[in-house]
Amino acid sequence: MQIAIGLYPGFTALDAIGPYQVLTLAPDAEVVLCAAQKGDLVDDNGLLHLDITHTFDEVARPDVVVVPGGIVTRRLARDRDPIVDWIAGAHPHSTYTTSVCTGALLLGAAGILDGLDATTHWCAYDELADYGATPTERRVVHEGKVWTAAGVSAGIDLALTLVADMHGEEVAQAIQLAIEYDPQPPFDSGAPSKAPAEILNLVRAITQAKVAAVLA
Amino acid sequence: MQIAIGLYPGFTALDAIGPYQVLTLAPDAEVVLCAAQKGDLVDDNGLLHLDITHTFDEVARPDVVVVPGGIVTRRLARDRDPIVDWIAGAHPHSTYTTSVCTGALLLGAAGILDGLDATTHWCAYDELADYGATPTERRVVHEGKVWTAAGVSAGIDLALTLVADMHGEEVAQAIQLAIEYDPQPPFDSGAPSKAPAEILNLVRAITQAKVAAVLA
Repeated sequence: MQIAIGLYPGFTALDAIGPYQVLTLAPDAEVVLCAAQKGDLVDDNGLLHLDITHTFDEVARPDVVVVPGGIVTRRLARDRDPIVDWIAGAHPHSTYTTSVCTGALLLGAAGILDGLDATTHWCAYDELADYGATPTERRVVHEGKVWTAAGVSAGIDLALTLVADMHGEEVAQAIQLAIEYDPQPPFDSGAPSKAPAEILNLVRAITQAKVAAVLA
Repeated sequence: MQIAIGLYPGFTALDAIGPYQVLTLAPDAEVVLCAAQKGDLVDDNGLLHLDITHTFDEVARPDVVVVPGGIVTRRLARDRDPIVDWIAGAHPHSTYTTSVCTGALLLGAAGILDGLDATTHWCAYDELADYGATPTERRVVHEGKVWTAAGVSAGIDLALTLVADMHGEEVAQAIQLAIEYDPQPPFDSGAPSKAPAEILNLVRAITQAKVAAVLA
């Protein structure tokens, strides 16, 4: 079972590492971190330097495609970055094609989400709809083999439900216990429908400014 | 506000990246990933290759010390790895000294936990007690400036409560919403007191075998 996490400069670290942590604990999983080029690849903070060992061409037909998000996805989707072609080429052969956060926009650009329910980071619902998807505020949305997760941290929930689907509930429970995933968020406001309006507006404004900078 | 995440070969990725994701969004935060040596550093899967840019010596007095865990911590603690000396040297000057998962064993080896309540990955409670700490099954334990978190995924909760303490609840809420941290674990069994006995015994046996291999 080859599980490919597709990366690009500017990805958001937890989007990738949440699923990575869960999926590397799954039985018989060959997890591969791949990108357009080998070598140095930096996250959206410019701080986390990964040394990528596999190109997209070398991981052309994985069983599971995982696409993390990041602010830069808007530009990658617009400019049809190599990751979009990789997703489009891999999807017809995959068992699952999945995204975390605005990784969904890359699935959208690859033509996979047209007519489907899907989710993404709550700041990107309108952009998701541009690809013909119906955005919905849910943690993980399943449409056949296309699974999309909400923002950043939702990749952990995506991966655990994926493991349960692949290997059964006991394996998923064991991994959940191994990573002691008994979350206790300090506030009950981690989703747009739950957050105070002023916090929501603040985060939306900051995000929109970052998106504008990336598209400029 | 310099926040140093101290790493070593064999660290567990999510232990580090959970806090990293939260803390890089905090105001005026200078987050630094440091290790004994610059250059390539690999996680416990041998898959995630980081390019480390700062040595411990270059980050000798951070405001916040964050120590992720990993199976290998037992050997690092026993052999007084350079990270133990780094923690011991940084702690007297820090504003917060924190750990995720079995990073607590490295705090223990540095002599910081003697007489304190603390937590760690649930498989390591006995080892934590060997350092004079009183292990407790809580998500995050605060003892003055020494904050310890439970296994792997608990670093997200640690970091959000840390941001709330440093910058107030509104900033922490904004970051929680930015990473859409509204967790929905598929099972309510992510802590030892909640897990079915057979799952608990399975994960404990696997972990003990990994620990034995690391100490051999």
